[in-house]
Amino acid sequence: MQLLASYLSGAWAPGSGSRVALVNPATEAPIAEVNNGGHDFAAAFAYARETGIPALGALSYAERGALLAACAKAIHGAREELIALAVANGGNTRGDAKFDIDGGSVNLSHYAELGAKLGTVTLLPDGDVIQVGRTARMGGQHVWARRRGVAVHINAFNFPGWGLCEKLAPALLAGMPVITKPATATALVAHRMVELFAKLLPPGALQLLVGPAGTLLDNVRPGDIIAFTGGSATARTLRSHPKIAEHSVRLNVEADSLNASVLGPDVELSSETGGLFLADAVRDMTQKTGQKCTAIRRVLVPAARLDEVADAFKERLGGIVVGDPANEGVRMGPVATAQQLKDVREGIARLAGETASVYGGTGEIDVNGGKGYFVGPVVRSTADPINCKALNDHEVFGPVLTLGSYDGTSDYAARFIARGEGCLVSSAYSDDREWVAGFVGGAGAWAGRLYLGSAKMASMSPGPGTVLPALIHGGPGRAGGGEELGGERGLQGYLQRVALEGDASVLKALLG
Amino acid sequence: MQLLASYLSGAWAPGSGSRVALVNPATEAPIAEVNNGGHDFAAAFAYARETGIPALGALSYAERGALLAACAKAIHGAREELIALAVANGGNTRGDAKFDIDGGSVNLSHYAELGAKLGTVTLLPDGDVIQVGRTARMGGQHVWARRRGVAVHINAFNFPGWGLCEKLAPALLAGMPVITKPATATALVAHRMVELFAKLLPPGALQLLVGPAGTLLDNVRPGDIIAFTGGSATARTLRSHPKIAEHSVRLNVEADSLNASVLGPDVELSSETGGLFLADAVRDMTQKTGQKCTAIRRVLVPAARLDEVADAFKERLGGIVVGDPANEGVRMGPVATAQQLKDVREGIARLAGETASVYGGTGEIDVNGGKGYFVGPVVRSTADPINCKALNDHEVFGPVLTLGSYDGTSDYAARFIARGEGCLVSSAYSDDREWVAGFVGGAGAWAGRLYLGSAKMASMSPGPGTVLPALIHGGPGRAGGGEELGGERGLQGYLQRVALEGDASVLKALLG
Repeated sequence: MQLLASYLSGAWAPGSGSRVALVNPATEAPIAEVNNGGHDFAAAFAYARETGIPALGALSYAERGALLAACAKAIHGAREELIALAVANGGNTRGDAKFDIDGGSVNLSHYAELGAKLGTVTLLPDGDVIQVGRTARMGGQHVWARRRGVAVHINAFNFPGWGLCEKLAPALLAGMPVITKPATATALVAHRMVELFAKLLPPGALQLLVGPAGTLLDNVRPGDIIAFTGGSATARTLRSHPKIAEHSVRLNVEADSLNASVLGPDVELSSETGGLFLADAVRDMTQKTGQKCTAIRRVLVPAARLDEVADAFKERLGGIVVGDPANEGVRMGPVATAQQLKDVREGIARLAGETASVYGGTGEIDVNGGKGYFVGPVVRSTADPINCKALNDHEVFGPVLTLGSYDGTSDYAARFIARGEGCLVSSAYSDDREWVAGFVGGAGAWAGRLYLGSAKMASMSPGPGTVLPALIHGGPGRAGGGEELGGERGLQGYLQRVALEGDASVLKALLG
Repeated sequence: MQLLASYLSGAWAPGSGSRVALVNPATEAPIAEVNNGGHDFAAAFAYARETGIPALGALSYAERGALLAACAKAIHGAREELIALAVANGGNTRGDAKFDIDGGSVNLSHYAELGAKLGTVTLLPDGDVIQVGRTARMGGQHVWARRRGVAVHINAFNFPGWGLCEKLAPALLAGMPVITKPATATALVAHRMVELFAKLLPPGALQLLVGPAGTLLDNVRPGDIIAFTGGSATARTLRSHPKIAEHSVRLNVEADSLNASVLGPDVELSSETGGLFLADAVRDMTQKTGQKCTAIRRVLVPAARLDEVADAFKERLGGIVVGDPANEGVRMGPVATAQQLKDVREGIARLAGETASVYGGTGEIDVNGGKGYFVGPVVRSTADPINCKALNDHEVFGPVLTLGSYDGTSDYAARFIARGEGCLVSSAYSDDREWVAGFVGGAGAWAGRLYLGSAKMASMSPGPGTVLPALIHGGPGRAGGGEELGGERGLQGYLQRVALEGDASVLKALLG
């Protein structure tokens, strides 16, 4: 069986000690192994600092962008192989796998283009020169300067390809070397991608840890950055990590999110907008078996339309074939791990205590002869959505969604978004602009992205569950308070904002 | 003796329990008292949420700006009274007091003007519409939306007036109610300012806690923001606070900072640039008795000029009269508290172990008949500045500065800035633009502001120690990793960035 090595200090390092197996979640068959330790993290950080930082610093934005373009090309060249790994290790359907892998290369290409656009500048301007003295001669100019630190990326199990690339692209373009750690259980895709990328990148620019983080973070210093995607319990531990707290290490967290979707009172289900509402919700339930941090968990429907919406879900979900995604015709695979299955079942049980069944009961499903981590799509409903604790306080990370009825006001809808205490994305479907304005005014405080479904964009929308590199990804409160991507905004997380103060002509010359 | 009350839940609340005295640091005479507890913090937060948030939300940016203008006017009206309080309670000279108090009203006026400029918009645009679909119809628009939370401001003892206002102005303009907590020892100025402001602001917009924080922060929730200025030990505690970590409460920290100043190799001391270099350093040592978070602590001088610079410091510092600032002719008062005096003396002793005396020995000084927290100005020197641990690892928060000699290269200068592991501001004095560019390229990663002294701006420069509302204030690493002020950037800390995604014409309409 393949032993997945880490890539640290410029060499592939198998590690040592006890081992853990990676399995195919549809069959539970082991497909690779990882050592739980045996790495020299201090040496890896020193290598990033002493070799990676100067190597990336010697390159312009355009040259670093070209490296990202080469990585994107490498993904395209190995696409079928990567898809096969995602199907085997992630329980992904072919469509799920493409979403992860092509999504990764889209991020790399986006930042490659940004690099080409930025060219050879070293300081990125942030606004214009400001007069800060008696005359225009004494000025202030904010700029984004390159940080001299290491970026540590800790990714979630659900997007091993996309997660690697969406964090890697802005960090490398900004000139920071990266130590990336995929979730162990689904590490095969990230491992293969790093095999491809390592040959293309300067020494020290990218290191990979497969296996537990152990004492990795004890090595952070001022100027370093940690970007974490995962559960809120781990996020809390990270925030209190002595070295992170001591050195004010920038910590970007993307954690739990109870994303909501709201059907506006003006929308007929049979309309284009209504069709988009249904298609987006069903896609989010079933794509990646509901294991998307951006997936819709809570759906608000005008009370008079609740039955109609419930019927539409029943009809659409009835056509979803669940099974081993290696088999033709399967539309939804298992969840990624035994632990995930346990968590999802517990979450459904909690929901079942406060909600009624619309479809799929509690998700029990008999497929694949009892092997694999399968759960069927589940729709629940409640007549009191804001006061339903299980719905609003706990993210069920699987193919599970709850319908709630409401009075149709944008005020209730916004309060319902707020009740999630901070989410990555929420969506509203309406062609009534006044209603939409009311919704945005109230809900804007509680989401990193608000997706506004309407008839005019229905035919070309990727849906709220798709994170685009041009728009920020992150959210307040429960969602972790972080921010990634968003085009040039994504670079800023890896740069230092500096106010330059002095003779305005000197400031102008510094910007070149 | 005056008992300082807090202003909580819309009423002046004296508190209860044990008491602590506020003293005049020049005479050690008690001048006011504060109760150590007896406040209902849960009620105060509820009042901010239920009364303050809607009251501020009912106002436009322009109207909230007008409130700030009224507060600035109130400071002007009570200026002499406030100056007297600062002299008595802060050990401030009249000049120090004006720096704190006028600085506060400058911040209020700056954000008042910004409010007038923003007018009645509700969503502030962040960049332009981005095409995110196949055609321009499907767009993305980033905006800054009003958060629905409470801002908790915890300020340092050295700037009770400025600290209150620089945090209050952007928070109120952004529409967030504030609970402000000055350092107890020097709370008189902040207390009086809140007395003035409270009558001018809507109910719930501003609350004041005088005395220990106690369980205050146990009441934070998702959407709240804490801005802290103070020591790194408290900052570490805050980062690990269970409620802050649990709810991803935004925490802005401004902590320790070993700000450096570098004399470029091209600069004659007798030149305008050389004169600016000396004036800025001496001002930072003596203004507020060196108790400025932005004060220069480390000074780098070309080896060949070290003696000349040392002589110039001796000459200028010889003219500084230290004593009770209530007395005519006194140019430098005591430090603010007995604890500060102890800390400064310990810091000087540490420095003395690794550096030579240039001026003032270890700061022992015989004034005021032995009463008061006095320390004299101290200049030390070292021939190996980067490797001097006491110089680079510990902030001495008093009238203390160390000279180090270097080879005159911008590379060494930048590495010296970096050795401070993150600072609020550092400065370089040179009229050689190539040297300055090299310095900025290397040092930019390690400071929130870089002040570039030169002949052309010497006559109108406020010096690096002055924080301007138009430029960001904060720094990476040791300085806490935070960011305040910076004009509109200062608002952003109190707003939520949201990516709106949908029909481009809908997005355009939302921006109004």
